[in-house]
Amino acid sequence: MNYPNGTKKNNLLVNHHENINYKNRGMTLESEINSSNEYYRTIDKAYIYKKPTPIKITKVDYPSRDKAVIKEAFFTIPSTTDYNGIYNSKYIDFEAKETKSTTSFTLNNIHPHQIKHLENISKHGGIAFIIVRFTTLNETYLLPSEKLMFFINNINRKSIPLNYFKENAYLLNDGYRPIIDYLKVVDNLIGGN
Amino acid sequence: MNYPNGTKKNNLLVNHHENINYKNRGMTLESEINSSNEYYRTIDKAYIYKKPTPIKITKVDYPSRDKAVIKEAFFTIPSTTDYNGIYNSKYIDFEAKETKSTTSFTLNNIHPHQIKHLENISKHGGIAFIIVRFTTLNETYLLPSEKLMFFINNINRKSIPLNYFKENAYLLNDGYRPIIDYLKVVDNLIGGN
Repeated sequence: MNYPNGTKKNNLLVNHHENINYKNRGMTLESEINSSNEYYRTIDKAYIYKKPTPIKITKVDYPSRDKAVIKEAFFTIPSTTDYNGIYNSKYIDFEAKETKSTTSFTLNNIHPHQIKHLENISKHGGIAFIIVRFTTLNETYLLPSEKLMFFINNINRKSIPLNYFKENAYLLNDGYRPIIDYLKVVDNLIGGN
Repeated sequence: MNYPNGTKKNNLLVNHHENINYKNRGMTLESEINSSNEYYRTIDKAYIYKKPTPIKITKVDYPSRDKAVIKEAFFTIPSTTDYNGIYNSKYIDFEAKETKSTTSFTLNNIHPHQIKHLENISKHGGIAFIIVRFTTLNETYLLPSEKLMFFINNINRKSIPLNYFKENAYLLNDGYRPIIDYLKVVDNLIGGN
């Protein structure tokens, strides 16, 4: 198991008096990643953004010349993953998902073309991965796309067991700034560790 | 002036019997870029996508369990540019705009934070640029972000004259597949030419 942030969460709670550990309670994985990305931008470390939700707009009203109101639209299946950007000259691409399960992560949480997308990115020299949070366990893992592809291509199961994460993914601990320092793991991936 | 595609458009019209030159008429720059990106993906050359239009959703109906209908939403200002992705291990990022002017491109067509974004990408090792089409002239240029920043930082004008494009940008000719082969120019930018 990997501990890129160095400390376990319990130690962090004992040693620090920042109120962030309380503030984080109830934050979704998405909001924690968005906040971390904002912090990375603030310190000019990386420019990684969440893509807007893809929708198909079917009706728009123009109550005035400059103001458009969308009156009917539908959510559509995303072509790619939710997050991408640049860090240390590298193209970064990932998807983030939560699961309530305490034993496994169901693969149909990710669209097949998103998995293909991650594989393409990796093949073309980008850093691709998924971040999965087991909310009930409060454990968050970063699984590199190579390990994801290995599972899909070699193991005939529709869900990835928690143990596969424990053995092949990096555990991401909560921190203060950023809340999830997933670029520390990316440093390892770039370094080939 | 740079002619990365080798031939001028008029030659292309004379020498080729592909019907694409007629089909292109009336195609917007956006649809041509989308089509070119799709082609690049088909031949496994690059994975560059247009981001979804950012909107703020204020009302959603759920007529049935699995079907959500957005009933009210508003267009919001994008945080970044429209297009990004990976090519040849490089992070690619750009914005595409059309203008009817025959003399200049008004800078307020691009949000200041988009310009800042392009500058950040470039600083961090990505390939950043804008593609501008002068629709009346039917001329399309790729202007590297460094040249864009030079203009903004050194020349006190609110619009970039066509001549600045002629001297500092790359002319993009229409082709068959892809319709706009802007990655040829990116090859030059990566090679440092």
